Amino acid sequence: MEAPEKATNVTWHAHQVNRAERARIKGHGAAVLWFTGLSGAGKSTIANAVETLLNERGVHTYLLDGDNVRHGLNGNLGFSAEDRVENIRRLGEVAKLMVDAGLVTLTAFISPYRADRARVRELLEPGEFIEIHCDTPLATCEARDPKGLYRKARAGEIRDFTGIDAPYETPEAPELVLDSGARDVAALAREVVHYLETHGIVGAADSAA
Amino acid sequence: MEAPEKATNVTWHAHQVNRAERARIKGHGAAVLWFTGLSGAGKSTIANAVETLLNERGVHTYLLDGDNVRHGLNGNLGFSAEDRVENIRRLGEVAKLMVDAGLVTLTAFISPYRADRARVRELLEPGEFIEIHCDTPLATCEARDPKGLYRKARAGEIRDFTGIDAPYETPEAPELVLDSGARDVAALAREVVHYLETHGIVGAADSAA
Repeated sequence: MEAPEKATNVTWHAHQVNRAERARIKGHGAAVLWFTGLSGAGKSTIANAVETLLNERGVHTYLLDGDNVRHGLNGNLGFSAEDRVENIRRLGEVAKLMVDAGLVTLTAFISPYRADRARVRELLEPGEFIEIHCDTPLATCEARDPKGLYRKARAGEIRDFTGIDAPYETPEAPELVLDSGARDVAALAREVVHYLETHGIVGAADSAA
Repeated sequence: MEAPEKATNVTWHAHQVNRAERARIKGHGAAVLWFTGLSGAGKSTIANAVETLLNERGVHTYLLDGDNVRHGLNGNLGFSAEDRVENIRRLGEVAKLMVDAGLVTLTAFISPYRADRARVRELLEPGEFIEIHCDTPLATCEARDPKGLYRKARAGEIRDFTGIDAPYETPEAPELVLDSGARDVAALAREVVHYLETHGIVGAADSAA
């Protein structure tokens, strides 16, 4: 359908802007912070807190979550096994594009299956996929139950709910494990930013503007 | 599957980083430069030239083209009518996310159907979708034939090739019309950048670093 194109009368010698140049004008590296865990485990809350800390330092970020992909890019997917795989696959591919664009990209989805997360990791270069297990105990998540989904799942009103009647496959070697039942969100967010600093993805706070 | 999450013990009052803040640290606005036209019309070449000019000014960009989406995000799509619609739909949704991330986003796809392009325009806010018709005459595109695709299409070796045995629906009200058969790529790229300047999306050259 489409072929690379060359003008025959080109006086411009096309120089493709590459990832290194996109990184240069941003002043930092890029990676995916992939938050995974039960509903109510704090994924979106921590991701938002991390994004805020990074933004204050002038780090270029983007957060993919249900709000911006469920009715858009993944709006034509349902909840079949096949669609759940495709859901995570597309998120992984978009995260990869965002990283290629030079952004510190955050995602906040339950993403309960190891195989799906492993496929996203494989899409990226070593060190670019930072799996963050929000390991808040189920009892705490269920006590929070911000949207009443656990209650509905227990009542049998919704089915295949992760942690109740569908599995959550615990990450075997996540880069970070965070328990928002044990520590406050601000401390957890600082831990994530510290990880980015010690791994050379963003500069330390005192070297940033 | 997923619900917005709130920690019950939040000491951090989550402040969502919004598009305005992402724009602030970038120092410019965001939009989609949607290049459309026949194979060989110069879409990718001009888009690359525009991206280079913008990058030299420190403008944060991303170029979506066949190289980074065909085997990735859209790797599970073929060439059926349904898949072609879905191809452009996903590109539009990703472009929308990139614009939300604050990037000047360039796309270089034939995108021959008006209805598909109109749907992408509708996804975006007024002024954010900049349709650029690469209106190089078919004869010029065919004479260039960088990958020999026109020759194959004429020989009947490939079918449904835009401009030969599949329609290209000319944009009715594109923001820009460029003919790479009549003017050189550098001049056309400057025209695109000038459009961004006069519409307040990027600063004028002398005000940029």
